Amino acid sequence: MAKHELAADSLHYCWDNSIAPRLEIEAGDTVLFQTQDAGDGQIQPGCTAEEYSRRVFKGHPLTGPVFIKGAQPGDTLVIEIQHLETVKWGWTGFRPTAGLLRDDFPEPYVHIWQWDNPAIPEGWAEFKPGIRVPREPFCGVMGLAWNEPGQHSTVPPRAAGGNMDIKQLTVGSILQLPVTVEGGLFSVGDCHAAQGDGEVCVSAIETAGEVELHFTLQKQTAIREPRFWTGKQSSPRAGEKGYFVTTAHAPDLFFASQQAIRYMIEYLVDTHHLTAQEAYILSSVAVDLKISQIVDGPNWTVSAFLPNAIFQ
Amino acid sequence: MAKHELAADSLHYCWDNSIAPRLEIEAGDTVLFQTQDAGDGQIQPGCTAEEYSRRVFKGHPLTGPVFIKGAQPGDTLVIEIQHLETVKWGWTGFRPTAGLLRDDFPEPYVHIWQWDNPAIPEGWAEFKPGIRVPREPFCGVMGLAWNEPGQHSTVPPRAAGGNMDIKQLTVGSILQLPVTVEGGLFSVGDCHAAQGDGEVCVSAIETAGEVELHFTLQKQTAIREPRFWTGKQSSPRAGEKGYFVTTAHAPDLFFASQQAIRYMIEYLVDTHHLTAQEAYILSSVAVDLKISQIVDGPNWTVSAFLPNAIFQ
Repeated sequence: MAKHELAADSLHYCWDNSIAPRLEIEAGDTVLFQTQDAGDGQIQPGCTAEEYSRRVFKGHPLTGPVFIKGAQPGDTLVIEIQHLETVKWGWTGFRPTAGLLRDDFPEPYVHIWQWDNPAIPEGWAEFKPGIRVPREPFCGVMGLAWNEPGQHSTVPPRAAGGNMDIKQLTVGSILQLPVTVEGGLFSVGDCHAAQGDGEVCVSAIETAGEVELHFTLQKQTAIREPRFWTGKQSSPRAGEKGYFVTTAHAPDLFFASQQAIRYMIEYLVDTHHLTAQEAYILSSVAVDLKISQIVDGPNWTVSAFLPNAIFQ
Repeated sequence: MAKHELAADSLHYCWDNSIAPRLEIEAGDTVLFQTQDAGDGQIQPGCTAEEYSRRVFKGHPLTGPVFIKGAQPGDTLVIEIQHLETVKWGWTGFRPTAGLLRDDFPEPYVHIWQWDNPAIPEGWAEFKPGIRVPREPFCGVMGLAWNEPGQHSTVPPRAAGGNMDIKQLTVGSILQLPVTVEGGLFSVGDCHAAQGDGEVCVSAIETAGEVELHFTLQKQTAIREPRFWTGKQSSPRAGEKGYFVTTAHAPDLFFASQQAIRYMIEYLVDTHHLTAQEAYILSSVAVDLKISQIVDGPNWTVSAFLPNAIFQ
């Protein structure tokens, strides 16, 4: 039941099962990881859109890998998220190369959030005067190396986890990952202070942070993709005043998601007088995408939920 | 501010803007609609799978249309859901012709729910001993005729609404629909006593019911698809004990949804000793599909949330 620490150095920027473990632990141990933000420190308060567009993304900076003794392919690694804290600022940005509406936003854009401000209630981050979002931090990336040789991008999540960007993986949640290589080789990074289901503009409130994880092992209980237990679906604080919801109906869920977010941006621009760029950023951080129905062919229904409580 | 009533007779089974209105109302009026269940009364307690498979589906039985005086194309009809009550039983079923996992379940299946039972807490429906789901009724179908001639299936929802199957459209919600024909021509039906986001097996807890709706009109405020205000995202009662969540990662959201539900069914079979058919039914009624991220190409993440509180 040892406690270990790993600093945010000697980071790795791809998944590669040949990367030497930085730490070997026993099942039952706990590790406190320091994590770098997804921008690898290149984005700082005061960053302009032009500077943002020039940043180099060589992969998410990941802290690890951790070798769990006794972990074998076919086992399941169980990770309890015991503690998670971020620094007191973060960023959200988009570039024309990525995001759900990449064709609608040809120019780069970045927003810096700061919550080291006594005027902002504890646990919230101010977007601009009168608009704030609840901070509910989680790690965008938690994953294991897998049994394919070579270097693999950190961007897509895979069956062994990785960049899943599941906002409900907050403190208290318990995550199961399938082990596909000896020792599992776990890495973590990409803390988010807040995110909507969908992360539509391609970034959340991106921060550096620290996360304490407790590891146990289930032998020979192969699961095929990650699964987890969590306390909630959505933020109770955000939901206190209900939701405004846009819907879109189409045979393709990706297109329906695009349309629902386009309607949401129109609403935010018309009703809350944001710019389209601000509305896109806010949608990425606070709007939740649901599949309302996936059976009434040929049209499926995607709904985008905006919490009214973010407006004062 | 008149109050009207429409009985569940003279039903219509398709969308067709040439169907004569059963009622003309003023903006500001309220209508109490009686609605038939989606099975049009063909499914009754005691119904076998074989009888279920033989039922004829000619479209959702809809109560309406209602002509709203003054409604013109380009206007928005605003509908407040003021009251909704269902009969004290319902059904959930699937056939090999429909549903998210139609290829996995080649045999028909039907489950009858009854909650006219003092042993079951008020507001819940028992699935089988030890498993119950909270009842949170809504109308699967609320919609307007639209400006294309001829008869159109009630199955797919469209820009003017229809079979949206959005479970958050419960009492207290306010729905906006775009008017595309004179008078709007509103119809309603397909009450559900409970449903998960996704409605994966193709039916919810299907019931007959009555719904009271208040209609107002916004002139010349064209919206492109339905949107609404609602009090919540998910059932607070269902969420009291947190969630078990399966995830799937794939370039196609439909396939990822299938996989997440397959993993959920495996879990329900392994952990709660349901048959696969029971697990599929329960997933349709109680499991919520979320798009966790839609930006980490090429793999998007779909998560399926099962509320632990349904198990006693």
